[in-house]
Amino acid sequence: MIVILKPNVAHEKREQLIEWLKAQSLGVHISDGAFQTVLGLIGDTSKVDLDLLASLDIVESVKRVSDPFKCCNRKFHPEDTIVSVGEAKTGGGYFSLIAGPCSVESEEQIVSIAKAVKAGGATMLRGGAFKPRTSPYDFQGLKAEGLELLKIARQETGLPIVTEIMNINHIPLFEDVDVIQVGARNMQNFDLLKELGKLNKPILLKRGLANTLKELLMSAEYIMASGNEQIILCERGIRTFETYTRNTLDLSAVPMLHELTHLPVVVDPSHATGSARLVPPMALAAAAGGADGIMIEVHNDPMHALCDGAQALTPEQFAALAEKVHRVREVLAV
Amino acid sequence: MIVILKPNVAHEKREQLIEWLKAQSLGVHISDGAFQTVLGLIGDTSKVDLDLLASLDIVESVKRVSDPFKCCNRKFHPEDTIVSVGEAKTGGGYFSLIAGPCSVESEEQIVSIAKAVKAGGATMLRGGAFKPRTSPYDFQGLKAEGLELLKIARQETGLPIVTEIMNINHIPLFEDVDVIQVGARNMQNFDLLKELGKLNKPILLKRGLANTLKELLMSAEYIMASGNEQIILCERGIRTFETYTRNTLDLSAVPMLHELTHLPVVVDPSHATGSARLVPPMALAAAAGGADGIMIEVHNDPMHALCDGAQALTPEQFAALAEKVHRVREVLAV
Amino acid sequence: MIVILKPNVAHEKREQLIEWLKAQSLGVHISDGAFQTVLGLIGDTSKVDLDLLASLDIVESVKRVSDPFKCCNRKFHPEDTIVSVGEAKTGGGYFSLIAGPCSVESEEQIVSIAKAVKAGGATMLRGGAFKPRTSPYDFQGLKAEGLELLKIARQETGLPIVTEIMNINHIPLFEDVDVIQVGARNMQNFDLLKELGKLNKPILLKRGLANTLKELLMSAEYIMASGNEQIILCERGIRTFETYTRNTLDLSAVPMLHELTHLPVVVDPSHATGSARLVPPMALAAAAGGADGIMIEVHNDPMHALCDGAQALTPEQFAALAEKVHRVREVLAV
Amino acid sequence: MIVILKPNVAHEKREQLIEWLKAQSLGVHISDGAFQTVLGLIGDTSKVDLDLLASLDIVESVKRVSDPFKCCNRKFHPEDTIVSVGEAKTGGGYFSLIAGPCSVESEEQIVSIAKAVKAGGATMLRGGAFKPRTSPYDFQGLKAEGLELLKIARQETGLPIVTEIMNINHIPLFEDVDVIQVGARNMQNFDLLKELGKLNKPILLKRGLANTLKELLMSAEYIMASGNEQIILCERGIRTFETYTRNTLDLSAVPMLHELTHLPVVVDPSHATGSARLVPPMALAAAAGGADGIMIEVHNDPMHALCDGAQALTPEQFAALAEKVHRVREVLAV
Repeated sequence: MIVILKPNVAHEKREQLIEWLKAQSLGVHISDGAFQTVLGLIGDTSKVDLDLLASLDIVESVKRVSDPFKCCNRKFHPEDTIVSVGEAKTGGGYFSLIAGPCSVESEEQIVSIAKAVKAGGATMLRGGAFKPRTSPYDFQGLKAEGLELLKIARQETGLPIVTEIMNINHIPLFEDVDVIQVGARNMQNFDLLKELGKLNKPILLKRGLANTLKELLMSAEYIMASGNEQIILCERGIRTFETYTRNTLDLSAVPMLHELTHLPVVVDPSHATGSARLVPPMALAAAAGGADGIMIEVHNDPMHALCDGAQALTPEQFAALAEKVHRVREVLAV
Repeated sequence: MIVILKPNVAHEKREQLIEWLKAQSLGVHISDGAFQTVLGLIGDTSKVDLDLLASLDIVESVKRVSDPFKCCNRKFHPEDTIVSVGEAKTGGGYFSLIAGPCSVESEEQIVSIAKAVKAGGATMLRGGAFKPRTSPYDFQGLKAEGLELLKIARQETGLPIVTEIMNINHIPLFEDVDVIQVGARNMQNFDLLKELGKLNKPILLKRGLANTLKELLMSAEYIMASGNEQIILCERGIRTFETYTRNTLDLSAVPMLHELTHLPVVVDPSHATGSARLVPPMALAAAAGGADGIMIEVHNDPMHALCDGAQALTPEQFAALAEKVHRVREVLAV
Repeated sequence: MIVILKPNVAHEKREQLIEWLKAQSLGVHISDGAFQTVLGLIGDTSKVDLDLLASLDIVESVKRVSDPFKCCNRKFHPEDTIVSVGEAKTGGGYFSLIAGPCSVESEEQIVSIAKAVKAGGATMLRGGAFKPRTSPYDFQGLKAEGLELLKIARQETGLPIVTEIMNINHIPLFEDVDVIQVGARNMQNFDLLKELGKLNKPILLKRGLANTLKELLMSAEYIMASGNEQIILCERGIRTFETYTRNTLDLSAVPMLHELTHLPVVVDPSHATGSARLVPPMALAAAAGGADGIMIEVHNDPMHALCDGAQALTPEQFAALAEKVHRVREVLAV
Repeated sequence: MIVILKPNVAHEKREQLIEWLKAQSLGVHISDGAFQTVLGLIGDTSKVDLDLLASLDIVESVKRVSDPFKCCNRKFHPEDTIVSVGEAKTGGGYFSLIAGPCSVESEEQIVSIAKAVKAGGATMLRGGAFKPRTSPYDFQGLKAEGLELLKIARQETGLPIVTEIMNINHIPLFEDVDVIQVGARNMQNFDLLKELGKLNKPILLKRGLANTLKELLMSAEYIMASGNEQIILCERGIRTFETYTRNTLDLSAVPMLHELTHLPVVVDPSHATGSARLVPPMALAAAAGGADGIMIEVHNDPMHALCDGAQALTPEQFAALAEKVHRVREVLAV
C-alpha cells in the first residue's frame, strides 16, 4: 500500500502518522521526492482502512498495490476454473449455451421451450420463477410453483436448470436447482452471498448495473471466502447515458476478467440490449471476445410469434445463432 | 400510454395489435400522422407490459403518460408527508439533523458522540451496527451488540436512533429501533422492502448508486403498497465518471423529488463526497436546495483528532455547521 | 410530435396552447385520456422547439415521433452506403482494416510501419500528425510535417491515409489526405463539421466519449446537410464508471447504428480499451458484431518491443489478428 | 511518479526498465514489498508518458504523485484569483450574478431583458449570439448581428457582456466582448484554448458534459500556459443515467475546485437542470456551497409569460432569487 503525503507536511504530524502505522505491525518505507513524500507500507495491509488513511489531512491519496481479492485472483490460481453441472461445463475451454424464457409461465410453456432450446443446442435451461421487478404492481413470477415446473422441464430434457434467487430465506427451496443465479440487483446483498458460499452448488453471479469489475470480484470473493468455489460470472450490461439500448453491454469485461480471475465469464446479451434484433450480433461478439458461455432468452409466445419480433428469440433464431456461435469459436480455437 | 408504430406497418399486423390491446380491456385511440401512426391506450394501463409492447417489431416506441408510482405520487396526495419519531419530525417544514458515527464501536464511543451531537443540535442519532462492506475481509460491524449500544445511547440522550438493516431475517432485531435505514445497495431488495412495508415504523430509504429517481420512487412504492407510509427518502450520491469525489451528490434530486412526491427528502453529504472538507459546503447546499434534513457523520476518534481532518466531522465542526444550516433555512423561510 | 399535458390543466390555458400550435401551421390532434390529455402534432414539426414546449407549465412531457436526423436515416435511404477510397471500400459488405501508429514520429517509423501493416492485411494507414492532448505539456504531434511523412508512406505502400484534423483552419493542409478523421473531442465542433461537409472527401467521424448515438447521427447530419455524404462512423468507447479499462467499448452501437443509418460503422478497440492485451478479443468481437471495419494501433517501437507488451500491437500481432478477423467474417457471411 | 510492477517480474526485464528510466534523467527509488516492487521516480516527470509506462507488460499500474496542472494549481498560488471586468468582480469573496436570455433575438428583447436583470441585481449580461445546436436544422443564433445587439444592451445598462465563441476564426469579432465563454462542447477544443490564451480578456470556461475536474483544470491550463490568467470556471451539469433532469448538476465540484485551484468557480443551474422550477433551489444551493457566482437564464418572451413557466426565469423571479442568494451568502460570511 502506497500513501502519498501532501507537500509541506509538518514534520511532527508525519512522524505521528508513521508511528501509528508501525503500531499496526506494518513496515514503513519512506521515499522523499523532490516535492512530496511517499510511504510504502509493508506487511499485511489487508486490515488497513484505506478510507480512513485517505481522509487524514496530511494525506493526499492512498493506493493499494495488491488486489483486494484473493480467492478469485488469477495470480494465486493461474489455471481456469471449470464449473461442471452434470455434463454441462463452463470455463477452461468449455462453452455454455444457457437458454430459456424470461419467466416460467406454465408447464406446457417451459417444457416446450426446454425441448426446443435443447434441440437448438442449449446446454442449460434458464427461466425465472422469482422475478425482481422495479414496480410492485408487475408480475412477480410463479415463485415456488415455477421452480417445480423447471424441474419437470429438466426431467423431460435432461437440461440442468438455472434460476434466480431473491431472498435468503428461499435457499431451501433451491436445494434441487442446478445453478443458482444471483441477479444484478443482489450482487451486493452480502448476507445472501455468504449463505450461498456455504452451499456445494454452482452460483451464476451477475454484475450489478453500476458495479465495477473489482466489485464483482469482491462479491465473488464473499461466496468463495465462505467455501464455495463454483462461480460463473456474468456480464449483463451496465448503466450509462445511452438510451437507444436498455443497458450498455461491456464486452471488454470478458477479456479483462479473464486476466484478473480464473473464474469463467458468460454474457447475457438479452438483458443488456433489451432488443431481440441486437441479441445475435452481441452473442456472436461475446463468443468472439472469448466468453465462456452465453445466456439467451428464447420464447414461444404466440403474441410474439404473431409479430415476428420480440425481446426474446424464437427457437429457430436461437438454433441458427447457436450454430454460428460454435463456428466463431472454432476460429478462436485455431 | 402512447404506442408509436413504425412507418409503413402492414395493415394486417396493425389490426392484430389493436385487437390484442382491446382484448385487454383497453380503449385504443388511433392517430394517423403524415408519416407514422400513434395509438393512445385508454383505461387501466398499469397491467400492460411496456417492455413486451416495445419489443414488437411493428412498434417503434412506447411511452407511459401516467407515472407508474401511485402511493407516493404528489398528484394524488398534494400535502407534504411529515414523518414523526417522538419529537423529531421530518418534512412539511420540519428539518432533521441526523448525526453520528459511521460504525458503532463501543458503549463509550457511541454514548459520548450521542451526547456531543445532541449538544450540537442533532435531532436523531445515526450509527451502523450491520455494515455493508464491499470486501468480505473488512469489519462487518458489531451487529446485534451494536444495536444494544445504540439503545443505551438513546436512553442517555433521548435521541431517536437510525440504523441500517441488511437482512430480511433481522427485522425482529430492529423492533426497538426508531428508524430503519435501507442502504443504497438494498434499495432494490424487493422482498426486504415488502416486509418493511408491513411494519408501523419509519423507513429511511437511500437511493442506490445507479438508480434513477423513478426507481427510488418505485422502491418507496413497494413499502407503501404493503401499508407503511412513513418513508424518508435519502439522496447520497450517484456513480459517475468523476473520481475526485467518491460519488456525485445529485442535489437537483431534492427539488425534483419534492415535485414528484409528498415524501420528505434528506441528504447525506458524508457518504456522497467521502471527504470531511466537502461536507459543510454540501450540507449547506442541501439545506439551501430545500432538503428536509441532512445526515452527517461525526466521530471522536483520537487518530482523526490527531490529524485534524477525517472523513467525519468533529463534534465542534458539526455544531458550527448545524448553526449555519439553520440560518440558511431561515433565509428560505422568508 | 406528441405533447402530453399535465392533469387538470385549466381549459383556457390548454386552448391558448392549441391556438399557438395551430398558428405555427401544425395540425393538432386531441386525445383525452381518463386522466391526461395528449396532443398529436401533425405537419412539419422539425422547426418546433421541443425544449420550449417541454418547459411550459401545462406540459408534462414532449416526445418526437419521427427521428430528428434525415440524410443519414436508413428509413429514407435503405441501402448501405459504401465509402470508397481508391480500392479501399467500407460498408455494404466491404470491410476496412485501418492500422498504423498513434503518432507519426519520423519518415523511417511511418514508412516501416506502413509496409508492415500492408503486409499484415491493412487496407488503410492511420497515424496522428495533429494530436489532441489533455495536457498542454504533452507532445502535440509533428503537425504539417507529419502529414508530409504520411504522404511518403502512402507513396511507398499505396495505402490511403487517415489522419485527424483539429482546427478548421487546417482544412487546406488536408487537401491531399484521403480520409479526414474527426476525433471524439471534436464530434460536436459544429463549425468544423459544416466546413467538412463542403468537401468531396470521406470523413471518419468518431463518437464523443459522452455522446449518444442520436448525437453522433446529428453530427453526421451536419456534414451531410452541407453536401458531403461520404461518412464513416466510428465507435471508440464511452465514458463510464468502470476504471479497469480506459473507456467502455459500446459494441451494441454497431448493430444499433446499422438499424438507424445506412452509413458504415467501424470500431477502434485500441483507444477504447487502452490495453494491447484487450485489443485482439475486442477486434474479433467487433467483427463478429457486424462492424464494417476496425482501426488498430500498430507500433514498431523498440521500448515496446523490449517489454513485449504495449498499448499498440506489434506488426506480427496485427497480422495474426487480421487473419482471424477475416475468418470470423466468413462465419457471418454464411 | 509511482510505478507498481507486477509480481514475479523477471529480474532482467526489471533492470531494463530501470535503465531506460534513468536514461531519461530520472532518479529511481526501488521499494521491494513482500509481494510486489514499487518504483518511485524522482525528477521532472512531467515529460514521462504515463500511458506508455502503464502499457508495459511488467507494469501493473502507474500513478502520478504530483498534479499535472501547474498554472492553475492552488499549491503554487494559494491566494484566490479575482477576475475583474470593470466593476464586476468574480472570486476572492466577490460574487457574480450573470443573467440574460438563452439567445439574443432582437434589439428590443436584449435591451429590455438587460434592463430588467440589472434592476434585479445582475452584475453581467449573458446572451447567445453563436449557438451550438445538436441539430443542423435548429436555430444557430443571430451570429455577428447578435454581438452588436449585446453591445447596444451594454451601452444602455453598463453591464459587461458574456457570450459564447464557437470558432477560432471568430476571435476578432469578439474583440469588444467583455468575457468570452467557451461552451461545454468546446472545453477540449485545444487550438481554440491556445488562441484564447493569447488574449488579455477574461474567459469563462464551462466544464464539458463528460469531463472530469482534472480535465477542466487541464483545459484552463492550456489557456494559462499561453499567458492569459483571467479564467472563470463554470460547472453546468454532467451527463449521467438520470433522465428527470437534463443533466446532473455536480455541486461538489465547487468546493473541490476551490481546494485544487485558485480560479473562481461559477455555476449555471439553468442548463444543468433544464427546468425553471429547479433553478431557484439549485442557485441557492450553489451559493450556499460556496460558488463565486451564478449564471441564470432570464426571458421576457410572451409565449412563456402566457404559460407562466418556462425554462428561463422571468425578471421578477430572478430579482426575488437574487435577493435570497445574497442573504444566503451573508450566512456564509459570518
